[in-house]
Amino acid sequence: MNRAAIFEQIKQKQSFLCVGLDTVKAQLPAEVLQDDDPVFSFNKAIIDATAAYAVAFKPNTAFYETEGSEGWRSLEKTVAYIKEKYPEIFIIADAKRGDIGNTSTAYARAFFDRMQVDAVTVAPYMGNDSVKPFLGFEDKWVVLLALTSNSGSADFQNTPDVNGQPLYTKVIQTASSWAGADKLMFVAGATHPAELANIRAIVPDYFLLVPGVGAQGGDLEAVCRAGLNPQCGLLVNASRSIIYASKSADFAIQAAAEASKLQQQMKVQLQLAGLL
Amino acid sequence: MNRAAIFEQIKQKQSFLCVGLDTVKAQLPAEVLQDDDPVFSFNKAIIDATAAYAVAFKPNTAFYETEGSEGWRSLEKTVAYIKEKYPEIFIIADAKRGDIGNTSTAYARAFFDRMQVDAVTVAPYMGNDSVKPFLGFEDKWVVLLALTSNSGSADFQNTPDVNGQPLYTKVIQTASSWAGADKLMFVAGATHPAELANIRAIVPDYFLLVPGVGAQGGDLEAVCRAGLNPQCGLLVNASRSIIYASKSADFAIQAAAEASKLQQQMKVQLQLAGLL
Repeated sequence: MNRAAIFEQIKQKQSFLCVGLDTVKAQLPAEVLQDDDPVFSFNKAIIDATAAYAVAFKPNTAFYETEGSEGWRSLEKTVAYIKEKYPEIFIIADAKRGDIGNTSTAYARAFFDRMQVDAVTVAPYMGNDSVKPFLGFEDKWVVLLALTSNSGSADFQNTPDVNGQPLYTKVIQTASSWAGADKLMFVAGATHPAELANIRAIVPDYFLLVPGVGAQGGDLEAVCRAGLNPQCGLLVNASRSIIYASKSADFAIQAAAEASKLQQQMKVQLQLAGLL
Repeated sequence: MNRAAIFEQIKQKQSFLCVGLDTVKAQLPAEVLQDDDPVFSFNKAIIDATAAYAVAFKPNTAFYETEGSEGWRSLEKTVAYIKEKYPEIFIIADAKRGDIGNTSTAYARAFFDRMQVDAVTVAPYMGNDSVKPFLGFEDKWVVLLALTSNSGSADFQNTPDVNGQPLYTKVIQTASSWAGADKLMFVAGATHPAELANIRAIVPDYFLLVPGVGAQGGDLEAVCRAGLNPQCGLLVNASRSIIYASKSADFAIQAAAEASKLQQQMKVQLQLAGLL
């Protein structure tokens, strides 16, 4: 999927919501647990309930790997379901991969050729030859970790170099020389709104994937003030606050309500920014 | 597996060889391609051929994920086979994972509880709360990326901070305050022997997992001079040079020969260091 198609969908849905499919089998409502593949059944219901409000879905591979090869199969079915029923929606495998060149190529094939998602999150620690193999696929995207939403982001991402420049801005500056805003996005946590503005100044054109709104406490309005650009430039993710809005039989209805609420807030922000 | 058991095996086998099971289906010899699960058949033959010379096996998840859930199943079968037939051998899932706390916990469960490997490679970029969830499992290990063997390692790992300290040594110093040498190892590429000595000086007691000997060109003798400690303290990995020593029907025999050659060189180094 190319950048124009993402922005088109944002305008149509008046939303830049990414729904994180962080599906933990042990936390599923009793109603789906009797199904053959409860994780997929749950995801299917969440996807149908939230597709009208979301421009992206982001399954995190960790929660599928916990169920082993069966979990990986649930993930494959989930991606195939989205692609078939909602082909306009952007799919991000939140996998945080990255390895030496031939190994990163294998990961890229796993996610782009085999699973056929649109984007993969990649960790920058191993440098250019660990990231570039993901950049060679048409209309596929790397979402590179820059400043993550967790408290541990302070340990290394904020480390200033000899010129006082923190590592996360060096990552952004270096990586933006590897690929343009049509192939590369950055992860920038909603829990750091001041740094978000800094990131936006360094890469005015790039999309930012912003986790941390919802369960992690980030503020949508602050994120928008710092991060919106003329093509929106933001995908704001919420996972647990949507998919676990209720743990009873009404989980899909409550997930839809929660996604709708965020979409309404996003619509206001898009209007304020003159993008609708 | 605890540190004493690893050292015991090193002394018994007179080896600190880790065989990397980076099994690419497209590169397998015709002899195994007709099997139901060629990746597993190949691994089984390689494991049987090299178990006498190796103290660790290290499947890299990328090459299994390229085959989707079926590949993940081949990986599970490979780990189960090693555990059943060679329970003394240390198994490292080379997965380079790392995410926010609850997500890293899911990864740790995937690898330690479900797949039951002994160790997982983890990327440090996201800091303490991304690594610590992997440290809470008895006799399980984190192998943290410090200075990797690829050329891209120069991009960020070598970035000096305001005191001139490169990031990789900050990673090692910081992480060694999170866990001792009984739970934590570091990845230090054989392609950087000078820096290996530096790392050994910072963490005299910790095991180092050293990739880059073999196809990547690292020098075993230089690695040993820089890295051996009184408990050996090294696991030196070779992947492609062993498993693809031959691409014909004699692949297992040639893999054994290649592993044996490395084991003989390691024996000499252990003797020179007075450890045998």
